[in-house]
Amino acid sequence: MTDENRQTTLRHRVWLILDPPDGIGRGWAMLVNLGLIVLIVLNVIAVLLESVASLHQQYRAAFNLFEVVSVFVFTVEYLLRIWIAPEAHPQMPQGQARRNWARSPMAIIDLIAILPSYLAMFVPFDLRLLRVLRVLRIFKLTRYSSAMTLLRDVFREEAGSFFAGFFILFILLILVSTGAYLVEHKAQPDAFGSIPHAMWWAMVTLTTVGYGDVTPITPLGRVFGGLVTVLGIGVAALPAGILASGLNDHLHRRRDNLRNQFRRALEDGRIDLHEAAHIEKARKEMGISYEIASGIREEVLQRERDRRDCTCPNCGAQFTRD
Amino acid sequence: MTDENRQTTLRHRVWLILDPPDGIGRGWAMLVNLGLIVLIVLNVIAVLLESVASLHQQYRAAFNLFEVVSVFVFTVEYLLRIWIAPEAHPQMPQGQARRNWARSPMAIIDLIAILPSYLAMFVPFDLRLLRVLRVLRIFKLTRYSSAMTLLRDVFREEAGSFFAGFFILFILLILVSTGAYLVEHKAQPDAFGSIPHAMWWAMVTLTTVGYGDVTPITPLGRVFGGLVTVLGIGVAALPAGILASGLNDHLHRRRDNLRNQFRRALEDGRIDLHEAAHIEKARKEMGISYEIASGIREEVLQRERDRRDCTCPNCGAQFTRD
Amino acid sequence: MTDENRQTTLRHRVWLILDPPDGIGRGWAMLVNLGLIVLIVLNVIAVLLESVASLHQQYRAAFNLFEVVSVFVFTVEYLLRIWIAPEAHPQMPQGQARRNWARSPMAIIDLIAILPSYLAMFVPFDLRLLRVLRVLRIFKLTRYSSAMTLLRDVFREEAGSFFAGFFILFILLILVSTGAYLVEHKAQPDAFGSIPHAMWWAMVTLTTVGYGDVTPITPLGRVFGGLVTVLGIGVAALPAGILASGLNDHLHRRRDNLRNQFRRALEDGRIDLHEAAHIEKARKEMGISYEIASGIREEVLQRERDRRDCTCPNCGAQFTRD
Amino acid sequence: MTDENRQTTLRHRVWLILDPPDGIGRGWAMLVNLGLIVLIVLNVIAVLLESVASLHQQYRAAFNLFEVVSVFVFTVEYLLRIWIAPEAHPQMPQGQARRNWARSPMAIIDLIAILPSYLAMFVPFDLRLLRVLRVLRIFKLTRYSSAMTLLRDVFREEAGSFFAGFFILFILLILVSTGAYLVEHKAQPDAFGSIPHAMWWAMVTLTTVGYGDVTPITPLGRVFGGLVTVLGIGVAALPAGILASGLNDHLHRRRDNLRNQFRRALEDGRIDLHEAAHIEKARKEMGISYEIASGIREEVLQRERDRRDCTCPNCGAQFTRD
Repeated sequence: MTDENRQTTLRHRVWLILDPPDGIGRGWAMLVNLGLIVLIVLNVIAVLLESVASLHQQYRAAFNLFEVVSVFVFTVEYLLRIWIAPEAHPQMPQGQARRNWARSPMAIIDLIAILPSYLAMFVPFDLRLLRVLRVLRIFKLTRYSSAMTLLRDVFREEAGSFFAGFFILFILLILVSTGAYLVEHKAQPDAFGSIPHAMWWAMVTLTTVGYGDVTPITPLGRVFGGLVTVLGIGVAALPAGILASGLNDHLHRRRDNLRNQFRRALEDGRIDLHEAAHIEKARKEMGISYEIASGIREEVLQRERDRRDCTCPNCGAQFTRD
Repeated sequence: MTDENRQTTLRHRVWLILDPPDGIGRGWAMLVNLGLIVLIVLNVIAVLLESVASLHQQYRAAFNLFEVVSVFVFTVEYLLRIWIAPEAHPQMPQGQARRNWARSPMAIIDLIAILPSYLAMFVPFDLRLLRVLRVLRIFKLTRYSSAMTLLRDVFREEAGSFFAGFFILFILLILVSTGAYLVEHKAQPDAFGSIPHAMWWAMVTLTTVGYGDVTPITPLGRVFGGLVTVLGIGVAALPAGILASGLNDHLHRRRDNLRNQFRRALEDGRIDLHEAAHIEKARKEMGISYEIASGIREEVLQRERDRRDCTCPNCGAQFTRD
Repeated sequence: MTDENRQTTLRHRVWLILDPPDGIGRGWAMLVNLGLIVLIVLNVIAVLLESVASLHQQYRAAFNLFEVVSVFVFTVEYLLRIWIAPEAHPQMPQGQARRNWARSPMAIIDLIAILPSYLAMFVPFDLRLLRVLRVLRIFKLTRYSSAMTLLRDVFREEAGSFFAGFFILFILLILVSTGAYLVEHKAQPDAFGSIPHAMWWAMVTLTTVGYGDVTPITPLGRVFGGLVTVLGIGVAALPAGILASGLNDHLHRRRDNLRNQFRRALEDGRIDLHEAAHIEKARKEMGISYEIASGIREEVLQRERDRRDCTCPNCGAQFTRD
Repeated sequence: MTDENRQTTLRHRVWLILDPPDGIGRGWAMLVNLGLIVLIVLNVIAVLLESVASLHQQYRAAFNLFEVVSVFVFTVEYLLRIWIAPEAHPQMPQGQARRNWARSPMAIIDLIAILPSYLAMFVPFDLRLLRVLRVLRIFKLTRYSSAMTLLRDVFREEAGSFFAGFFILFILLILVSTGAYLVEHKAQPDAFGSIPHAMWWAMVTLTTVGYGDVTPITPLGRVFGGLVTVLGIGVAALPAGILASGLNDHLHRRRDNLRNQFRRALEDGRIDLHEAAHIEKARKEMGISYEIASGIREEVLQRERDRRDCTCPNCGAQFTRD
């Protein structure tokens, strides 16, 4: 075994530990990944507690020690991930695979999570403000959460509709704050003294949050405000409606996908072991319950049976169509 | 009739009274179950009124008497339910059936509802605080409500999506409160003095509740706050969208289920009395209206008719179209 | 023509004016119905303005005159509607038809709208409080609104789910106000001094209204409050989800209904003029657009053509199946 | 080439620049359209900043210059658009085509955006108030946004349901503010002194905005208020439910449309190049993703294959199954 081979073998093993095919993995992989999850959670808790002045003063040393250890571990993790990046794309040149990985959103978050600590060594900056950025490490947790795939996919598919919703909100914000400025700026020169000032009230009302720190007080302002609250439930309905429709659509397409896989597997008349394993894997990836998948299989089988069993109307021969 | 037989017969009769197959039952069963429902409602009202200091002082004796009677009735009910537990699982050993029942969520609530009163006899504890736990008895009411099955099933099926929604809310809470701390902690050291403090505002805004007891006051804080209100309508859209999609899907699957039952019954060409009764039972269990079920049956029949045998009017050949 | 005939004819004409088959009708019917709509709107405006003390004092005479005229018109309308009630049910005994009508929700609202004015003549009661009830006359407007049929039907069909939603809200209200009482009643004996007092905050939070007049102030109370705001977006999601799913389902069933009518009409091979008129009427009643109805018709025709045009595989004869 | 021809040719070129068939266009068209978009955005920003008194004072000259330039550009654009209007309707008389265009909503917004500036020359009016109307120019941006077509179409299709929702909100507003007036006007004569006054609280609560500047304080008022908050989540559910159902329906109809186009193209057994181009254009116009369109095509092909001719392996008879 050559040196290079040994290195490749080691790299492959590290890859299987850091990036197991089924999320958290088993054995050493599970240990390492659970350890990283715990470290991320502890880091986030540390950032939260450190922001409490009294705790920060009292346990400054402990916080610093924990920070040094964390940065060390996350740096090692980052370097290892750069090293193993080619494993995921065996046919790609190593340099390109690593550059690709380093540009992925997850890698950038990994970098942002460790960079401030190194920067703080050189830049004479308020260390605490910078350290707060470490809270972004929480995004690393989504790496392990397969439950969020569905929602992320739906958000991506409906991005156009969500964008149109934002645009509508933006136009309404401009028009509503202009209107509020016109009707209220004389009565309340502080809160509605200019259109940019009036935007605070407009935004809080259009999203139905309604703090009540700023409210119209003139009769005309209240009539206008009442109409804006109606626009508010309309605006708040946009993401709910888009999401409901998108989830529903996504769900159906995932099932249609599974149905097509059953159909294609059945084209030769039966589902062999290899095909069954393939479909089972797809079912799990798409998060379709076993019960629903059975229903789809039964439906496809029934339709296939109807299509295949055939009686010749001429001679009465029974045969199976291909 | 042996002693054991008599006991079994009595136990079976008690079972039919306390746990009638159709929710509340008839005759004695209805009387007992309605009585228990009334007692639970009165108990909840008693806990609410007892928390009013003046009422508690004035009617202390009456509250105590009512408490003693209630605990007695609920204790008898609990013991009876342990006793009759094997009736629901005739083939299971009696001990195991009872242990199974005692570990069910409903049995644990039953126990929590009576335990504080017994504990209060031995532990010198603020009795009133403990008694408040009796309000959990209200959960026993869901035992009798069949209307909540659909919603509970949908919540269970969509549990993964709801969990992902909570995770998104959690990540946003961390990031938003960190951001609010950064932009506002100098202007408002009380409300935004640390990240955990800023979480109160972040949570109230992300859920669009918007109390307004704490709001950003700096210009930068208000721009940040305005963006967070938009995240708020997104967060509030998650459960609405998931629920809408889940309810819709559940509804369709229940109907597909009924459609399949009609199809299977029609495989021999007609729906006989036994099959009709079976489908009618399924229809009731799934809460599908008679009108909708008729529509499904007509559609299945129509499709079956389309497939029927055909005779050529020219040569008399018989063939089947499908 | 006998006296009775003449009366019947007059009654029929009054019926066509007061209750035209297509909502508001034409000619005299439109004039009368638009007049009644205007009078109702003016009555509601009068109640609103009369509640302003200064206006009430100044224009007392005008308000009284308008009230007398309104009550007179509505009384005549009510009596006429009792009189013409049998026209809608020609085969029912006249007395029964009138009793049926008098018990309908719309007739009861008509009665409530005029009764207070007559009662005020005899009972020495605060006339203004009683007069406010006339605002219920606004419900009479729904008589003319066909746009609300769809929403009303969906609310009725989903009544079970909405009821389960209310039950969940009720249980959460009890549990949340009990919890808020436990964690906050020492810090804020005014707002959280008893469970019934804490219900105000619980309700305002669970519905995401969030006035902010009462908020938790202890750290534990704010953690509890934060969890309750999450329950709040869950509660607010219930009606949105139920309504979205119900509307979607209702829409599909209306279209299935139209599809079935097309199919039944096509059973004899063609849609004759009488059938087309019947389907067109159903389409309008169900509020399905012409464009969508055309799509459904084309789909049914296509399927029918596929089913009927038949080539005998034996002799090659082309024939049409029945 | 005659003079008229030359003019028509120039007009056609201007038309292709100002109104390119694919939104923003390429080359000169893109330059002009992007320039107009930038100018509109700068105009909106100018209106916002001008409303800030200090900025207005300091940069009065710059604002005025920018205003003069903008009005000039928008006036030229308006006149050009009138001139080129006949290009879009070649077979219509020129005068009629121009009148039609001038009455379109977009043209009226164009006019409102420039008119105040000209009016200000003649009418001695507060110029700043009038200038605010220029913010309406933001609507011109929607001319370039194709992402909003879907939402606009759904709003139009569901207009009836949205209107019914507004009507329900209106009736609830009248009834709730009347109820609030009855239970609270003695305790809070300022906020609930008349029904019109109580409407502010009613509106803010029914839309779940919940400012909290006005809240019921009597026990009866709070019980009533608690019930109104429940109505509030019902009202807020209306637009979300209607939108979710409408989006879902619109999506399915677009796909059914594409499916029908595939089917019609396949009636002759294959999809030729011309048909493929036609379907591809329809797919783009309806905003259906390539992936989804492929799924639909595969499904239609599969169904067509099932129907294909069949040869009996025994006697060689040819027959068709459908």
